[in-house]
Amino acid sequence: MNNCEFCDLAPDDMKWLLYENEYWYLFLADRQDYAGRCLISCKRHCENISDLSIEEWLSLKNVMTNTEAMLKDEFGADVFNWSCLMNDAFKQSVPEPHVHFHLRPRYSKPVEIGNAVFKDKEFGHHYNNKAKPIDNKTAQMIFERLKANVHKYFK
Amino acid sequence: MNNCEFCDLAPDDMKWLLYENEYWYLFLADRQDYAGRCLISCKRHCENISDLSIEEWLSLKNVMTNTEAMLKDEFGADVFNWSCLMNDAFKQSVPEPHVHFHLRPRYSKPVEIGNAVFKDKEFGHHYNNKAKPIDNKTAQMIFERLKANVHKYFK
Repeated sequence: MNNCEFCDLAPDDMKWLLYENEYWYLFLADRQDYAGRCLISCKRHCENISDLSIEEWLSLKNVMTNTEAMLKDEFGADVFNWSCLMNDAFKQSVPEPHVHFHLRPRYSKPVEIGNAVFKDKEFGHHYNNKAKPIDNKTAQMIFERLKANVHKYFK
Repeated sequence: MNNCEFCDLAPDDMKWLLYENEYWYLFLADRQDYAGRCLISCKRHCENISDLSIEEWLSLKNVMTNTEAMLKDEFGADVFNWSCLMNDAFKQSVPEPHVHFHLRPRYSKPVEIGNAVFKDKEFGHHYNNKAKPIDNKTAQMIFERLKANVHKYFK
């Protein structure tokens, strides 16, 4: 694949890796506009949900379920906004979409992370696609906390 | 369930039903801001993806795959924006979220429906959550076309 950013993962991407299994990567999203926002990416270059194998689909359910449990326990998420969009691939002249899911945890209450407080200003409404991300230091703290505890949820 | 709009479907909702199986309803969304926009709703009151059974999850894959094929063939969709959000339920004092998926087909080229033409103005970008819906007459034509052909894709 020439243009697929998910097949050609850079060290800067891999530093956000929380978990992987045979079929999927679970990353903390580098853009932490919602505290604990994650990205689940298929390990192989699969262009749409239709083409996922049954094994990949069942494994995805497992990754989603465990990630929801983790974010509920660690940060108190109330509900989870899942999306699989793949629009960016269609900015290329030869689109090479690659199945990945965005997970934005949503919070009815403020979330304390170190000295920072994340407030979900649009709770009960569609996520804000242009929300300002959390500062880098706090994003790093979120990563470290999840990385230290992810094994509890993926047994 | 007292407040769950998906458990208490009104005749006005059911008139958009395209297909159902043991676990899922497939509706054409009454809000046709993207031509062929659909909604897949769990038949039982299930509050999050984590709680879906394996049977429901496998059946969902089948419904998603067949719906993608239908919208690709019938209207020439290039890519599919899937989301499972459930934010509206959290506007209630006692939230009763109910698993459902939004499907917005996305189009690189204009779509002709009768005398109307749908243009996906944001193709290659995140869907516009405030996009103006297609007129009612055209929405009805989309429904009739899909309803007449859905059996080809759900065998």
